[in-house]
Amino acid sequence: MLITSLANDKIKKYVKLNHSKKYRDEENLFLVEGMHLVLEAYKKDMIVEVILEQNETLPLDVPKVFVAKEILEKISDCPSSQNVMALCRKKEEKIKGKRLLLLDGIQDPGNLGTIIRSAVAFGIDTIVLSEDCVDLYNPKVIRSTQGMLFHVPIVRSNLMEVIDEFQQKGYPLYATNVSYGKDARSLTFEERQKYMLCMGNEGNGVREEILDKATFYLSIPMKEEVESLNVAIATSILLYELGRTK
Amino acid sequence: MLITSLANDKIKKYVKLNHSKKYRDEENLFLVEGMHLVLEAYKKDMIVEVILEQNETLPLDVPKVFVAKEILEKISDCPSSQNVMALCRKKEEKIKGKRLLLLDGIQDPGNLGTIIRSAVAFGIDTIVLSEDCVDLYNPKVIRSTQGMLFHVPIVRSNLMEVIDEFQQKGYPLYATNVSYGKDARSLTFEERQKYMLCMGNEGNGVREEILDKATFYLSIPMKEEVESLNVAIATSILLYELGRTK
Repeated sequence: MLITSLANDKIKKYVKLNHSKKYRDEENLFLVEGMHLVLEAYKKDMIVEVILEQNETLPLDVPKVFVAKEILEKISDCPSSQNVMALCRKKEEKIKGKRLLLLDGIQDPGNLGTIIRSAVAFGIDTIVLSEDCVDLYNPKVIRSTQGMLFHVPIVRSNLMEVIDEFQQKGYPLYATNVSYGKDARSLTFEERQKYMLCMGNEGNGVREEILDKATFYLSIPMKEEVESLNVAIATSILLYELGRTK
Repeated sequence: MLITSLANDKIKKYVKLNHSKKYRDEENLFLVEGMHLVLEAYKKDMIVEVILEQNETLPLDVPKVFVAKEILEKISDCPSSQNVMALCRKKEEKIKGKRLLLLDGIQDPGNLGTIIRSAVAFGIDTIVLSEDCVDLYNPKVIRSTQGMLFHVPIVRSNLMEVIDEFQQKGYPLYATNVSYGKDARSLTFEERQKYMLCMGNEGNGVREEILDKATFYLSIPMKEEVESLNVAIATSILLYELGRTK
């Protein structure tokens, strides 16, 4: 099948998926762009169909839709040189493992994507997004994860309920606040094996009711003139410390 | 003076400054947006004039230009709720201090801004940008620094010349490459007092001719499935390690 018109129903659907969170939620679908992400999605068995530039080939046993180059550029969120995309079905994930990263209201797509990439690098078992976090399937988020969103379970949930449930199961809760906290380097081996780490919104930090439940606060020593670090940086440094094996 | 027309020469100049690196270079001027950045620029005596929404006041002894709200929104790179901007003169900086961060071809404005913020947090004395780095005075870079660009000297220079000069002065050069390197945590106290740390372009890393001159490579231990971290994250973690006082 070769599609050359933007008015085609499939094309309209792809464009809408890349622009509307509501539509992604309703359809339970999302798009990924570029060979690297398409292959990652394939390994996870999440592909509904791949969207290829006409004359391209791809040796994967999935349905293929061929479109004109101009069409692919119109669909793409980043129309640089992607000549393959895939329509993917979202996968329901469950919280598992001992190292949980909780994100409370992260708004910037680049921050969320970068945090996911660092979380995989430093051994997080599950990421839990609060309900007001930016959409995981936002094309900018997906791009910034560099494919790593397929390497860790990511769940969207009510953080307060997750915290209550896992505190009962004996997981300590680490949070950050602006003014003080335990130096992350001083954490014991045991404190680094099983935990919830909660990081907060870019402007407001972790919300009060979560701070109230924290086992303790963590901090990163730095020069006084700097009020705070970018949240993706702060999260990554803490995960780096928590992930150390020695 | 109240300006209500986009055709006004001053307004045309502001708009052009926010959009053209070439023009910023020619005029040696740039804009900052928001009260926080305006005050930081004021402390550094870099303000030529402030640009205020009509009816606003600002108790600073600098020339003031008043503009209609719509005009301010047209000039702004981020027209959310900024009601003050400042036209600033660039300041010539020199390399000083013992801890130098060299950036080789960083392209993303958010990455550069975030790196500057982290560099101040962890005690870098001077940042040296290669000639092909994104412009420091790009409005997105300025915004991501959160005012920290005024807290550290930042120089644009030929990196190879800087490396030669400072290697002769006894500064070791640390670089990162993809595949291997010394664990940053194993650096001695002395190795953390005086150095050049060179970080590379988002896609290609540090260029070959710089790698060839490195005293040694640094690396960050992480899971094998992750090829690399975002460059702002990697830089910040290394600066965090290098900046430790104990």
